[in-house]
Amino acid sequence: MRMRKVPWAVEYLEKSQRLEKEPAKWKGKWHNRLHTKDLHVEIGCGKGQYSLDMAKMYPESGFIAIEKNESASGIAAKKFDEDPAEKKLALIVEDAADLGEWFKEGEVDVIHLNFSDPWPKKRYAKRRLSSDSFIRQYLQVLSDSGRIEMKTDNGALFEYSVLMFLDYGFRLKDFQVDFRKEEHPEDAITEYEAKFIEKGQPIYRAVFQKK
Amino acid sequence: MRMRKVPWAVEYLEKSQRLEKEPAKWKGKWHNRLHTKDLHVEIGCGKGQYSLDMAKMYPESGFIAIEKNESASGIAAKKFDEDPAEKKLALIVEDAADLGEWFKEGEVDVIHLNFSDPWPKKRYAKRRLSSDSFIRQYLQVLSDSGRIEMKTDNGALFEYSVLMFLDYGFRLKDFQVDFRKEEHPEDAITEYEAKFIEKGQPIYRAVFQKK
Repeated sequence: MRMRKVPWAVEYLEKSQRLEKEPAKWKGKWHNRLHTKDLHVEIGCGKGQYSLDMAKMYPESGFIAIEKNESASGIAAKKFDEDPAEKKLALIVEDAADLGEWFKEGEVDVIHLNFSDPWPKKRYAKRRLSSDSFIRQYLQVLSDSGRIEMKTDNGALFEYSVLMFLDYGFRLKDFQVDFRKEEHPEDAITEYEAKFIEKGQPIYRAVFQKK
Repeated sequence: MRMRKVPWAVEYLEKSQRLEKEPAKWKGKWHNRLHTKDLHVEIGCGKGQYSLDMAKMYPESGFIAIEKNESASGIAAKKFDEDPAEKKLALIVEDAADLGEWFKEGEVDVIHLNFSDPWPKKRYAKRRLSSDSFIRQYLQVLSDSGRIEMKTDNGALFEYSVLMFLDYGFRLKDFQVDFRKEEHPEDAITEYEAKFIEKGQPIYRAVFQKK
């Protein structure tokens, strides 16, 4: 979904408390920075509601939300700043293709992929967040007991991703073809997700365990 | 789906050409009996349309249709007999729990599970065709390059089955959350399936490879 441009976003991002402009500086030090034992990374956080809600639900955990779109991440930054109690949140406004430069080997415990762009055309398959080059970086930055939690409304992306992650040796730990058919209070509902639930569309979900 | 009792079914089965009353007798000899290089087994064939259609689509392959319900299998037997050109079809009217007694180790190339009873209650989970004791027998009778092709309309059964087969070391070779969204002329549509397609319900499908 393309976002309308938010005029104040870029300017706001400049002064945001939560924005990390040089993420590579913190490589290997994120646990200390966020005072957390387990580190969650959401790639493509959009306006940031999921990471914020999850940070509240899991006050012991640290969350790093990544979003390259400046309009969306500007809104996320504002949301995060307006919740000053949330000290365990950081925002990175970059393309996640450089993920391996920001995190040390084994530093990340959970990667969240929520309603990622499906890039349906085959010639753009490399841009999918479950394509080879991304998965190789996930394997690198995830801890041995690390996992990837994925949700999507897009059947084709789901099929592609499940086959890809299994091909790379991930273990399918959990798997739902209609995730919100049951109550799942342990997982926050994203803004996109709420719309699909309202329309009665199924949410596909899978959890891939590294080892 | 419970079937209405078919009054002529039991009597008809007695004289059917296609019925194999003592399947264990053919253990290790099915390829010869059906003059085929690859052996397909459909467990829970209902009224038999899928195996019949597939036998026509793949005249080089042999199909063994298994159905314990006598009303359904009576109809299947009649269908098979009325198509005398189809020499590569056999029918077994027994509970598939004895599968391992009818087929030699590695004798079966493909097992088809179409719209199997989901047995939603946990206390009946053992009756699901993707529960432990069945999977152990599939592993035994399947050839090394053998596979299981599964289709269902039931999300819960699908989730359970995918996790089960992967746990037992099967490789997920193919996987669809809305199988009939695209054309699949290589695979026959079962009678149940046609109803679900008409209602716009998604068909879940997976192919599990033994090695």
